[in-house]
Amino acid sequence: MSGARNLSAALRRARVPRPRIALRPTSSQTPLPTTAARSFTVSSTVQATKEIKFTSDAYPNVKRNPNFAELTPDHVTYFKELLGSQSAVIDGVSTDASDDIEPFNSDWMRKYRGHARLVLKPQSTEEVSKVLKYCNENKLAVVPQGGNTGLVGGSVPVFDEIVLNTSRMNNIRSFDQASGVLVADAGVILEVADQYLAERDHLFPLDLGAKGSCHIGGNVSTNAGGLRLLRYGSLHGSVLGLEAVLPDGTIVDALSTLRKNNTGYDLKQLFIGSEGTIGLITAVSIQCPPRPKAVNVAYFGLESFDQVQQAFLQAKGQLSEILSAFELMDGRSQRLVQEVTGKKQPVEGEYPFYCLIETSGSNAEHDMEKLEAFLENVMSEGIVADGVLAQDETQFQALWSWREGITESLSHLGGTYKYDVSIPLSELYQLVEDCKQRLTEKGFVGDDDSFPVRAVVGYGHMGDANLHLNVAVRRYDKEVEKAIEPWVYEWIQKRQGSISAEHGLGIAKREFIGYSQNDTMVKLMKQLKNLYDPNGIMNPYKYI
Amino acid sequence: MSGARNLSAALRRARVPRPRIALRPTSSQTPLPTTAARSFTVSSTVQATKEIKFTSDAYPNVKRNPNFAELTPDHVTYFKELLGSQSAVIDGVSTDASDDIEPFNSDWMRKYRGHARLVLKPQSTEEVSKVLKYCNENKLAVVPQGGNTGLVGGSVPVFDEIVLNTSRMNNIRSFDQASGVLVADAGVILEVADQYLAERDHLFPLDLGAKGSCHIGGNVSTNAGGLRLLRYGSLHGSVLGLEAVLPDGTIVDALSTLRKNNTGYDLKQLFIGSEGTIGLITAVSIQCPPRPKAVNVAYFGLESFDQVQQAFLQAKGQLSEILSAFELMDGRSQRLVQEVTGKKQPVEGEYPFYCLIETSGSNAEHDMEKLEAFLENVMSEGIVADGVLAQDETQFQALWSWREGITESLSHLGGTYKYDVSIPLSELYQLVEDCKQRLTEKGFVGDDDSFPVRAVVGYGHMGDANLHLNVAVRRYDKEVEKAIEPWVYEWIQKRQGSISAEHGLGIAKREFIGYSQNDTMVKLMKQLKNLYDPNGIMNPYKYI
Repeated sequence: MSGARNLSAALRRARVPRPRIALRPTSSQTPLPTTAARSFTVSSTVQATKEIKFTSDAYPNVKRNPNFAELTPDHVTYFKELLGSQSAVIDGVSTDASDDIEPFNSDWMRKYRGHARLVLKPQSTEEVSKVLKYCNENKLAVVPQGGNTGLVGGSVPVFDEIVLNTSRMNNIRSFDQASGVLVADAGVILEVADQYLAERDHLFPLDLGAKGSCHIGGNVSTNAGGLRLLRYGSLHGSVLGLEAVLPDGTIVDALSTLRKNNTGYDLKQLFIGSEGTIGLITAVSIQCPPRPKAVNVAYFGLESFDQVQQAFLQAKGQLSEILSAFELMDGRSQRLVQEVTGKKQPVEGEYPFYCLIETSGSNAEHDMEKLEAFLENVMSEGIVADGVLAQDETQFQALWSWREGITESLSHLGGTYKYDVSIPLSELYQLVEDCKQRLTEKGFVGDDDSFPVRAVVGYGHMGDANLHLNVAVRRYDKEVEKAIEPWVYEWIQKRQGSISAEHGLGIAKREFIGYSQNDTMVKLMKQLKNLYDPNGIMNPYKYI
Repeated sequence: MSGARNLSAALRRARVPRPRIALRPTSSQTPLPTTAARSFTVSSTVQATKEIKFTSDAYPNVKRNPNFAELTPDHVTYFKELLGSQSAVIDGVSTDASDDIEPFNSDWMRKYRGHARLVLKPQSTEEVSKVLKYCNENKLAVVPQGGNTGLVGGSVPVFDEIVLNTSRMNNIRSFDQASGVLVADAGVILEVADQYLAERDHLFPLDLGAKGSCHIGGNVSTNAGGLRLLRYGSLHGSVLGLEAVLPDGTIVDALSTLRKNNTGYDLKQLFIGSEGTIGLITAVSIQCPPRPKAVNVAYFGLESFDQVQQAFLQAKGQLSEILSAFELMDGRSQRLVQEVTGKKQPVEGEYPFYCLIETSGSNAEHDMEKLEAFLENVMSEGIVADGVLAQDETQFQALWSWREGITESLSHLGGTYKYDVSIPLSELYQLVEDCKQRLTEKGFVGDDDSFPVRAVVGYGHMGDANLHLNVAVRRYDKEVEKAIEPWVYEWIQKRQGSISAEHGLGIAKREFIGYSQNDTMVKLMKQLKNLYDPNGIMNPYKYI
């Protein structure tokens, strides 16, 4: 990467007294880059929506629940009167609004497509309450939808569920500078929240590729993990409170802004990761850390997965409290990004593995000293073969794009079978090798168009033992799918892993929960679902 | 404090080039001090148990639930056969074992005392399952008990509940060096777990004064907060999995060791902080951070609460990722410790407020540089009046003892009305002032024995906006109690605070949950309690 600092040179420099300069901007105004450049948007894929196969066809064993009512013009009239504004209702029942509705009926991966004929966009918690109460009383099924950036079809209707979209609930309600607690509506876009916080020297404790489109309510309801969980922890720890509406219209006001509150069962936790199946989150209160004054990024190539593991342990020990990301990308994933973007890879030569390390701290000089000591160590011990260190904001963005660009690059190449799994660290990459071998032996993998599978790639959040196994296909193919599933789930089950680390269950994995949860757990989960949603109207056909 | 480094001297030194030496031992074997010296033990207060008033007398409106069966010798025979070992059953039903049972019948504060006649100490999850199943079928009420170090009477029986004590379930099941995940039985003592981790360069992400006695199962079931929540987050974030037994004997095996696992409702969260009311936690899986290589402690005096707030904001900004504790102690609390221990206070002169700051990091030199810059800043701006910096392990312990010794010192002076509350930071200390004024106006506060109230003191975890309001009394007095309650709860409710930040509800606060939770939340909580414990046998008369 032109201008980026080569690590070998850095190493040579490290032997002599180093000038103590911050290599990254340290202004508190722009300590972390905004991610507009590295976020994808959903809209670009909308025009081709109609070519997407209906989920009801792709999953023929999923049948519409006959207990649910069919939408009538009377229902629509009720909603129009209730929500008032024209823009709050997209009516495909009384009118032909299919073009307007299609973007809400499918996902950006072009994998899931529903038959919804009504989209509602309430603007307040009270409106959500009235909508859900009416739906519950009239047995109208509902699919909650935020930014619709999910990967498992959780926010897309399957049949004619009403889409309850949170995009018009997008106010930041409050921020307290002393405590760092932000309270915001569910429909606030993650990047908007983070920019608001950036202006106040704070950071949203979650970051992910879909930042420019996803809603924080969706993030919480799917328990999103993302790029810096390693540093800022899970939403189960950082979410202090939330407001949600149960199917019967009950408003659950648990919007505490207190860091500690041991007064009864922590009910809000049930909504975190419940994918809209027991209620709709309308607002979130979240603990936000001070924005780091210094951020550094290094990108390097490694010869083996064993060395990746060694590098990770060294980073944990030496970078410790300033380590904010340790991302893994295999060689194939990086070549795919290179093919799609045409960009030159950051390091010369080809390696089977690449890692991206980010540090975030309060003192640029200290951080750089720790990072250099770490790099000196891993390079002198032969753990890291070659690498670069970002010298400015542009390079910071550029290096991150090699990690964050994988998902989008894959989407340009055709379809992708995506598996987001947790596996004990030592076997993390073995799944990719085994899957590639299996599909190759079955004759599915090849370089020309006669083979359905283009590549088997692996990348993910090494720091969280979270692998994204992606099988890039030229076309979706039932035979390929059958060769992967349930084999992949059995592979994970044997290692006590999780079949969904951070993407959730949605419709894609609803059948496979048994590979990661025992019968007792599933029974207890169904009991909870029945308790809160006895009519089953919330996000049906999904989750469990 | 003799030998400790005075900050004024430190400041003068800070102007000239500083020798880069670590002021604390940096050996990975003993980076954080063990807390044997600073932990209290429960046993010392046991001999006088019989003088403690029965809870049933102190709370005459709490009546024994007539649906519960009375224990018979037949029940005892069943448990003896089931648990086998002599040491597993203390039988006060068939025999007079009251001397042996009394320690389990009361709490270390000598505030709560039950009428239990049977103590069971199962040694495995299966035994717990069989015990609870039998109790549920026979309508025998149960009180789960770990180290019995609670402050709200949660682990002490009220009437004749069977004490289900976890002390014999005390094995560490596994520890994974690469991920830092510890799996241990509920009855492992917190300090034992932490020492085990210390030998493996890791840290238990929770620390509190009762460390030498409390069980990790009890910590999780009460969602303990403690001294370093500011740094390591709440147990809702760090607990990765748990194993628990429901009242009907169902074993909930959710003992995942994965950092990320989005496969269904996160049921384990319900047990965290549920105080044994829906089941008994038998094992815990928890994410443990690397043990910091360098730990520093500073203690200083300040002239006003406004300056305490300024110091805290400066610490958050400047110490940021290495700040591991910011504790507040008022002048009265420190004089009480001085009176009881006879020790010389760490700083000369009297101040209305004292703070203890701890940093934990991976590089002693960097940490000291940050700490010195912070201290230079707060002293040159006149925020901090005077202070000391620990120079070695002994001084580290000594400084912490001024914070951790408050609870025990108070217990030597008579009784204490304890309120553990969350309040927005700006008004945190106002509660102490207002309470003192109220009790003084009522003529309760004075220096000689004719006054029931000795002192109104405040201390706590500034970093979490968590205040411990303690009214030290020469004798428990209903008039004093009436002057404090519900006034104190109304005061907190007006500020949207929490009436229990970290100590929980137990029996002490069961009536007052309405001050921090609305009716809907209480209704939903009762619904959950009924779902999991329809007979209400788990820790009755408490919580909600």
